[in-house]
Amino acid sequence: MNPPTVTPAPTEPAAPSPSVATTDGVYSTESVRTARERSAVLEQQIAADPSRFRVLTGERPTGALHLGHLIGTVDNRVRLQAQGVEIFLIVADYQVITDRDVAGDLPAVVREVLLDYLAAGIDPEATTIFTHSAVPALNQLLLPFLSLVTVAELERNPTVKAETAAAEKRGRRGMSGLMFTYPVHQAADILFCHANLVPVGQDQLPHLEITRTVARRFNYRYAADRPYFPEPDALIVPAPTILGNDGAKMSKSAGNALEIRASEDETVAFVKKAKTDSERHITYEPDRRPEIANLLTIGAHFAGTTPEALAESVGTAGAGRLKQVVTEALVEGLRPMRARRAEAAAHGPEYLHDLLARGNARANEIADSTLDDVRDLMRMTY
Amino acid sequence: MNPPTVTPAPTEPAAPSPSVATTDGVYSTESVRTARERSAVLEQQIAADPSRFRVLTGERPTGALHLGHLIGTVDNRVRLQAQGVEIFLIVADYQVITDRDVAGDLPAVVREVLLDYLAAGIDPEATTIFTHSAVPALNQLLLPFLSLVTVAELERNPTVKAETAAAEKRGRRGMSGLMFTYPVHQAADILFCHANLVPVGQDQLPHLEITRTVARRFNYRYAADRPYFPEPDALIVPAPTILGNDGAKMSKSAGNALEIRASEDETVAFVKKAKTDSERHITYEPDRRPEIANLLTIGAHFAGTTPEALAESVGTAGAGRLKQVVTEALVEGLRPMRARRAEAAAHGPEYLHDLLARGNARANEIADSTLDDVRDLMRMTY
Repeated sequence: MNPPTVTPAPTEPAAPSPSVATTDGVYSTESVRTARERSAVLEQQIAADPSRFRVLTGERPTGALHLGHLIGTVDNRVRLQAQGVEIFLIVADYQVITDRDVAGDLPAVVREVLLDYLAAGIDPEATTIFTHSAVPALNQLLLPFLSLVTVAELERNPTVKAETAAAEKRGRRGMSGLMFTYPVHQAADILFCHANLVPVGQDQLPHLEITRTVARRFNYRYAADRPYFPEPDALIVPAPTILGNDGAKMSKSAGNALEIRASEDETVAFVKKAKTDSERHITYEPDRRPEIANLLTIGAHFAGTTPEALAESVGTAGAGRLKQVVTEALVEGLRPMRARRAEAAAHGPEYLHDLLARGNARANEIADSTLDDVRDLMRMTY
Repeated sequence: MNPPTVTPAPTEPAAPSPSVATTDGVYSTESVRTARERSAVLEQQIAADPSRFRVLTGERPTGALHLGHLIGTVDNRVRLQAQGVEIFLIVADYQVITDRDVAGDLPAVVREVLLDYLAAGIDPEATTIFTHSAVPALNQLLLPFLSLVTVAELERNPTVKAETAAAEKRGRRGMSGLMFTYPVHQAADILFCHANLVPVGQDQLPHLEITRTVARRFNYRYAADRPYFPEPDALIVPAPTILGNDGAKMSKSAGNALEIRASEDETVAFVKKAKTDSERHITYEPDRRPEIANLLTIGAHFAGTTPEALAESVGTAGAGRLKQVVTEALVEGLRPMRARRAEAAAHGPEYLHDLLARGNARANEIADSTLDDVRDLMRMTY
């Protein structure tokens, strides 16, 4: 699956991935190319001075994280953290109920997600981890921000469009008001901490556009002399679609995922079960040989190389050899994560509780300060 | 105008009053009759035991209050307050920007509205006066509540429908997201303090229906064993349309209003300028003789009688005599309000600031407690 980033629109279990080239033509190939070029420049700026940037990212707590999340987004956060960029990591619990009636056992899921973050190398001293529902001042921003966008603009959002179509197809009751207004919550999530950088897959560019619109209109209307909110930049991250071992997109609901918390035996079994093809010469051809390409992507990620180079190294040794190489890389890559996870879990529930309490306290402090500023700017102080 | 109650949908300057008999048939004449009968029962229950009820009411701070507000809603609040019902009075500042880009000089307007409340007899020791923007935990309820209604349900709201049509007619940019979700904010405003009684004009019954739906669905989903939110009752208040002295609906923007803060001279001049007709025999016939009926309504309100009885007492003495009677009742009725207003204003700005700070503190205390409960019930505590 294409792993979600930034309080993602509900894409699990079955929502379609919105096309970048929308019918509105907002994101043409041209725009995507421009965004990619911009991202390359941003990477240079990050390397030169990471203190210029603050990142907002996160996901919905719908289950333990798997390889798709790790390769698609989580490892990128760890990379940015290592570069010295300040990161706000939101556990978007309210987003869980955008498209489902029951949220499941949220405390248990949040616990697993926190352990997965720690396992992957997120450092809670450097990165602020917080839950959406614990920061009222952040959520209050939804009200002024909703006044800055029109219903027509919300209807044009690709995820909202796709969800409308999907809901009709499934014959379920219509889209919830929470789903419909989701791009505006996202604006609040990003802008409350003045994040100026948001890692996204290229199909998520339109979402960020609403955040940029909200920031721009707020500044124009209430802070014309001195813009208050940044218009955050998209940092396009290569997020290859990771497949499960049945050849379909990896997802919890498909039952084909390798979770970060998996044991070494489960890891070995996952690769063993993976589909391959009968051509002995291993090549990286995602369109023609998706399952082989998938193994190459996974192996290369953990071996610190490219899928093409890994294919070259296997050469004509066939799928058996490829699986051997991938298993080794994967087992080696996940081993320290498993160790960190076990260590954190051994601290007991209080440890995670305190970790989250500290993150929430910091998020609240910043959100309160932003809301105070917003009330001043809107002259809602009496 | 039909004065707004309960964080009203924007009806000023020019939005149409939605018909009760909507095309969805939600509010048939039958339903209105049932609601009226229910209101009569509620009035008896209030008289018997006012402590059973908590009222949420309020309005948008768009300008100083006038005779339309006073007769339509404010005096009714004073009556309920005198009966011993606890009232939460919301100054719905966020609602000001549902349909306009600039909120105007909000601090000045809020100051005038507060003085108008005090003038009319609202007692800040008995009634909690607070501003929407100052209560983050109240506003956060918007998120879970949005998950409980569908976009289709929001589209069916008569005010949203009317505003869509009005916006198209005016050729302005489309409806804002804040306007579209307005019935859900209203649900948060009412339910945060567990209000179980909401005074409304009969054309506002559909709004309250969304609040009742939200309460019902929340209880069903998260508190099935023991319902958490009340399904508030509508208390239908007779809200006669008060006309300005040009025969059109009284409104600030029409420039035909008599404000509560008006001087005695302005009060006298207002009645003097009022339109009448040439029939000497004064009768209460709102459809055939709207201007005469309006004077009778105003005069009767302040004289503590009915328009019919007042008409009878004037008899064939003509419009001149009617104006004399109305002027006397109005001047007498507004005099103590003017005195209370002057007294409050003389205390200086600190007095109003403290009054509001106390109301906001109390609203926050209750909202925080409700949000804590809601997070517990939704299992969003980690």
